[in-house]
Amino acid sequence: MKRTAFFISDGTGLTSEALGHSLLAQFDSIEFEQITLPYIDDVEKAREAVQKINQIAEEHGTRPLIFDTVVNEDIRNIIAESNAFKIDVFSSFLKPLENELDAHSNYSVGKSHGIVERTRYKDRIDSVNFAIDNDDGARTRQYANADIILVGVSRCGKTPTCLYMAMQFGIRAANYPLTEEDMEFNRLPEVLEEHKHKLYGLTIDPFQLSAIRHERRPNSRYASLDQCDFEVREVERLFKKLNISTINTTNFSIEEISTRIMAQAGLERRMN
Amino acid sequence: MKRTAFFISDGTGLTSEALGHSLLAQFDSIEFEQITLPYIDDVEKAREAVQKINQIAEEHGTRPLIFDTVVNEDIRNIIAESNAFKIDVFSSFLKPLENELDAHSNYSVGKSHGIVERTRYKDRIDSVNFAIDNDDGARTRQYANADIILVGVSRCGKTPTCLYMAMQFGIRAANYPLTEEDMEFNRLPEVLEEHKHKLYGLTIDPFQLSAIRHERRPNSRYASLDQCDFEVREVERLFKKLNISTINTTNFSIEEISTRIMAQAGLERRMN
Repeated sequence: MKRTAFFISDGTGLTSEALGHSLLAQFDSIEFEQITLPYIDDVEKAREAVQKINQIAEEHGTRPLIFDTVVNEDIRNIIAESNAFKIDVFSSFLKPLENELDAHSNYSVGKSHGIVERTRYKDRIDSVNFAIDNDDGARTRQYANADIILVGVSRCGKTPTCLYMAMQFGIRAANYPLTEEDMEFNRLPEVLEEHKHKLYGLTIDPFQLSAIRHERRPNSRYASLDQCDFEVREVERLFKKLNISTINTTNFSIEEISTRIMAQAGLERRMN
Repeated sequence: MKRTAFFISDGTGLTSEALGHSLLAQFDSIEFEQITLPYIDDVEKAREAVQKINQIAEEHGTRPLIFDTVVNEDIRNIIAESNAFKIDVFSSFLKPLENELDAHSNYSVGKSHGIVERTRYKDRIDSVNFAIDNDDGARTRQYANADIILVGVSRCGKTPTCLYMAMQFGIRAANYPLTEEDMEFNRLPEVLEEHKHKLYGLTIDPFQLSAIRHERRPNSRYASLDQCDFEVREVERLFKKLNISTINTTNFSIEEISTRIMAQAGLERRMN
């Protein structure tokens, strides 16, 4: 069975998508075609959206689902007229929240609070730049300013994790790849010694590591299962010896890796 | 007035945060302290969370707010016993969805569908690597494989936008900084010529650009308002002459810049 789900928003659509995904994930047996309609911020666009939704309803012979995070009531009312099953965040939750907070909502789109937003933007850019500047044991090693330094073998997921933590939470995350040499001597590179308390180890299933490396350098020694197996075993031994917290990235998404590390390392989100 | 808001999840907490932020943003007059409690995935952790919440309730003399995206009913029931005002996503929406879909929900955390998740992970990593490899007009110029190529002056927001599009949507985004030389000749660098249809222009308020550049290179000619003013004016002229779509990044978040570009360029999300 196949159903179509629309994520409709007067902003980016990200909240609607996040909510929709987490609810749809509860229905494994059904295949969902997912369509995001962002920036539906006037009556005209709402009418166009309704047309599109009704057309799909007719073509498929089933009602589409709508996950709606539109703030403006007029627009929401138009969308409500479509031939669809609607999950409406603001209708469901805003009134009870108004009662609880004893305050009226702004009914305004987004969170553009001027200065707050500018500060947030700057924090994120700074954190993203920090991650890039301190990626892969780069020459720029501002480890004194790092919130966390991820260590692990090449291609175990350090870079995307650092970038995600920077982008989503404003965390200053550096990363350093441990090499065969480090493993041979069974010790940390000198540059990391004094930052030991900031280190967090990433590990990974050798089979998966090998598959990832084969894409980068097909049929190389670097990508061979033997080599991957050796590196992972040695790096795990080193983490254990030095009492460095670790996470096995094999079965986790980047979001999960990032938030689990932050929870375990006690890192607070720097941005809300 | 200050209230505390808890975002509680048995997973990453990201959906709960997204939902909570969009609702709380409707109440400008109230200051919210925001606390995320991710991975509340057993009864024991739920009890600890309730203790924490009740303690805050007592200290502050007001009920905290809870935005709850916990899937497991037993855990949710424990959280419901806390002295807080609760917005409960699964209680509110899952039953109606079950009826509409005529299917039972899995009541399972996350979306770890094995192979689907692995493919998704790989797509994201590939896209992030693509963004890094093709950042800032780097030597690797796989522009034939790019979904989009962002162009603009140095420090106008190209890099974080590319990385966000890669991370969130699996988009292959390259970027290329336009230099004074390009502006002098009032034409595109040769390497971009054949990819003109993939170009998207970023522009920015010269005052803000100057402020951002001053952080990077204080009191340089590069950061001077004169220089920023000149570059922005020239680059906008070039975009107009070549009929390149543009967005002014000054007042937008990275999410907004990314999703607006995608909507306008007709780029489909590659990942759901």
